[in-house]
Amino acid sequence: MLVFGHKNPDTDTVCSAIVMAHLQNKLGNPAQAVRLGDLNKETQYVLNHFNVEAPQLLEGSLEGKDVILVDHNEFGQSADGIGEATVKMVVDHHRIANFQTAEPLYFRAEPVGCTATILYKMFKENGVEVESKMAGLMLSAIVSDTLLFKSPTCTAEDETACRELAAMAGIDLNGYGMDMLKAGTDLSDYSAGQLLGIDAKVFPMGAATVEIAQINTVSIADMLTRKNELEAQMQAIISEKGLDLFVAVITDILNSNSQIIALGNRTDIVEKGFQVTLVENTALLEGVVSRKKQIVPVMDKSA
Amino acid sequence: MLVFGHKNPDTDTVCSAIVMAHLQNKLGNPAQAVRLGDLNKETQYVLNHFNVEAPQLLEGSLEGKDVILVDHNEFGQSADGIGEATVKMVVDHHRIANFQTAEPLYFRAEPVGCTATILYKMFKENGVEVESKMAGLMLSAIVSDTLLFKSPTCTAEDETACRELAAMAGIDLNGYGMDMLKAGTDLSDYSAGQLLGIDAKVFPMGAATVEIAQINTVSIADMLTRKNELEAQMQAIISEKGLDLFVAVITDILNSNSQIIALGNRTDIVEKGFQVTLVENTALLEGVVSRKKQIVPVMDKSA
Repeated sequence: MLVFGHKNPDTDTVCSAIVMAHLQNKLGNPAQAVRLGDLNKETQYVLNHFNVEAPQLLEGSLEGKDVILVDHNEFGQSADGIGEATVKMVVDHHRIANFQTAEPLYFRAEPVGCTATILYKMFKENGVEVESKMAGLMLSAIVSDTLLFKSPTCTAEDETACRELAAMAGIDLNGYGMDMLKAGTDLSDYSAGQLLGIDAKVFPMGAATVEIAQINTVSIADMLTRKNELEAQMQAIISEKGLDLFVAVITDILNSNSQIIALGNRTDIVEKGFQVTLVENTALLEGVVSRKKQIVPVMDKSA
Repeated sequence: MLVFGHKNPDTDTVCSAIVMAHLQNKLGNPAQAVRLGDLNKETQYVLNHFNVEAPQLLEGSLEGKDVILVDHNEFGQSADGIGEATVKMVVDHHRIANFQTAEPLYFRAEPVGCTATILYKMFKENGVEVESKMAGLMLSAIVSDTLLFKSPTCTAEDETACRELAAMAGIDLNGYGMDMLKAGTDLSDYSAGQLLGIDAKVFPMGAATVEIAQINTVSIADMLTRKNELEAQMQAIISEKGLDLFVAVITDILNSNSQIIALGNRTDIVEKGFQVTLVENTALLEGVVSRKKQIVPVMDKSA
């Protein structure tokens, strides 16, 4: 059984795949975690900290293989050739779309902030002991997805789970959590293209096609020193993909604000949605940190 | 919050809707069960036995309404206009297909024999007491979907849940279960069209479009006295819908066999799949009772 999260892997997707494979092995179902792309710096920091080996890159055909999906369900975000595999189980916290199976399966989605919060419940339900390393991976996933409980996607259940796991792993959440989030923002050696590719998704909004890329940072000012470079790259992506709008969201994880840079012929969607005026293509959105909860719905309405 | 099962409602779909609405109300979420069609005789027997009122027929638009789906997820099997509603929760035991939401939700599917088996776990997980009537509805749903544990779709979990629920409701499973299943087979006042409509589903198989209708009985011989009438109706449906094959499956719930009647220009699918020769359009399939597990996959392969 192969276990994997989404393409463009983040900390929740990688940690949840490792933890789910561990849980399945404990339950007597041989399973192996794999990943669908390179690890980001935050995830590397987490695996180093808890001395856990990175999953191998998925290689070869999925035809006839049994798989478990974590942290995603849409086939478009999954492994190439996912339609050839037999999906035996899904554990996720996203909307459900573009997913189908021929047979009944175990599918569990809950509207919480992080997949690992659900996995932690599964350990309890199955009476499987949570080893310290696994607790470390799960708490890291929750810190990552909820920006240390600051994101509006965070539920009381996520926070409670994270604090229980921190006690098990002997982790000081505020200290470790901030170090981990900061590790993910050490992007000085990234090209503009890499920065925009860390966490980018395309959305249809009304008649417009919109790409929204999010970059976490501890200093918006530092990131803005590269504004010209980012804009040139955004313009290139707009032309290449025929986008109507590209929004780069630079999120200050310390102060919970986001600076956006918007380019394209439908920047009116941003100005109308957030009631701001773009000056030199940019504006500050105070208190905004979640693309899923605070950006996409607002823009969708004004598109 | 409205709670409902699939069109062409059966005992699991109706009982699970009532039980889920009850559970939600106990959890402080006001909910009402509704149904998408007429009750069959088995379900009427169950509601009478436990003195539970039938859910009202769903009426009016679903636009902007919050709903919970039980015992199905495919929009094609759900209420008309389901796309206008906000699906907040799904509890099901079927394959997942043709389902999508804009927002994350609570979605729980497990590969067990009956939705009520999952609902019973939810009572336990939430620490909600199972009242005697609710136990009666849940055990009836399990008896119905598993043909009193004889169907290959029945899992150990279904049987254990059913026996626990029977103890709670003070029900003698063998006596009550058989009476209930037999009540569903009292079809003397049904027209041929009604008989074929009790539980019919259409499946694409290879290039062929196949309808398979299942009728439970305690006497295949009795049902075969109406063979000419059934065949005339099947032929009419084939012409009307442009089907390549229509298979009526008459299942003997006492002896766990099925007599099939097959019409259309692709009866080769049946003969090849089950290695039988149809004589006057009919053949006996020994030990076959489950459309999902023993009929559809076999025919799908030979189509």
